[in-house]
Amino acid sequence: MKKKQIAVILSGCGVYDGSEIHEATLSLYAISKLGAEYQIFAPDIDQHHVINHITGEEMAEKRNVLVESARIARGNIKSLDKLNQNDFDAIIFPGGFGVAKNLCNFAFKGTDCQVDSSIENLIKSFHSAGKPIGALCISPVLIARVLHGVEVTIGEDAGTAKAIETFGAKHNKTKHGEVTVDKKNKIVTNPCYMLNSTIAQIGEGAENVVKAILELV
Amino acid sequence: MKKKQIAVILSGCGVYDGSEIHEATLSLYAISKLGAEYQIFAPDIDQHHVINHITGEEMAEKRNVLVESARIARGNIKSLDKLNQNDFDAIIFPGGFGVAKNLCNFAFKGTDCQVDSSIENLIKSFHSAGKPIGALCISPVLIARVLHGVEVTIGEDAGTAKAIETFGAKHNKTKHGEVTVDKKNKIVTNPCYMLNSTIAQIGEGAENVVKAILELV
Repeated sequence: MKKKQIAVILSGCGVYDGSEIHEATLSLYAISKLGAEYQIFAPDIDQHHVINHITGEEMAEKRNVLVESARIARGNIKSLDKLNQNDFDAIIFPGGFGVAKNLCNFAFKGTDCQVDSSIENLIKSFHSAGKPIGALCISPVLIARVLHGVEVTIGEDAGTAKAIETFGAKHNKTKHGEVTVDKKNKIVTNPCYMLNSTIAQIGEGAENVVKAILELV
Repeated sequence: MKKKQIAVILSGCGVYDGSEIHEATLSLYAISKLGAEYQIFAPDIDQHHVINHITGEEMAEKRNVLVESARIARGNIKSLDKLNQNDFDAIIFPGGFGVAKNLCNFAFKGTDCQVDSSIENLIKSFHSAGKPIGALCISPVLIARVLHGVEVTIGEDAGTAKAIETFGAKHNKTKHGEVTVDKKNKIVTNPCYMLNSTIAQIGEGAENVVKAILELV
């Protein structure tokens, strides 16, 4: 039997300006461990900025989202514009500030945020094809902004939950490892590092998201 | 009971010029899942070079090993010179070319390689204190170079295995997930991406290394 194919969307390499590395890696690990396969994609655009992950300060550098995401992908990555929805059974967005800085501008604009049009089209395309969408950490913001009236979780951060409700979505308060499954829209979400977590709890969250997605395929 | 404390040594962020991200992350995950705790360290030195992980070509940039490793550590990292062996029960070296380019020069000098003196002192210090040392992927080269007559594995790559034997160590051929445990010297090694592996197999290898280490503490 052909293995289930999952597209994983990265937004750089590092929690403060790109993809959160543990969430990305542990999503790939869960996909592989649960018997599915993945292809990694990222947009070929400049990062919003580069953050020194020790000091938290901006560095006077330019980095490309696709090139940096390739570090997590070990080079096995494709540009987002090569993603054909027909080739995949589901899609997953790991978290990290890259989602809120490079894939949309939620980190800067809050409830006025705009989602990158290629990401918006991608989410709409998987949704209208009835294919599951997984989103970890801050990524549910993307889904809530693009699709109308979905049900998601980002844990228990009141400000982000409120923003999500402003977008017309329903927010569920959740704890470590708990997933919110919007069965009608096939949206699976988990807070990951939106809660203060150990890496073991991130692994549990990522695995539960992938499990729920594979049941919806 | 106080949890076992494990020092994890990184060498950058990305397989071709730093730490292999899956091996590093899945080592941290295994430590956390198996009930121990970690502190991450890296040397505060320039990377040997910066590699574009899509093209494999060198980029005209400078990056610092400690600053880039902080991406994997989510900022929770210390400079290697702050590592006090007395505070830890064991030490683990994940793999990646960073080990062979930034922590020693095996990638360029082969059997003539020299190990960075701070790394050399660290390995000798844990070894003479009778504390376990774990090494994934290419990292066993460090151990074989610094300690005399140890038994390690890097999988089945003939050239690297021969280099290790030139250093006076014994090399065991192994497959995915198999660890070599040198009980006398408390050295635990696994090939990880030195074999053509899925990320699920990397997780298995890292978990088996951490398990074996915790049994030796």
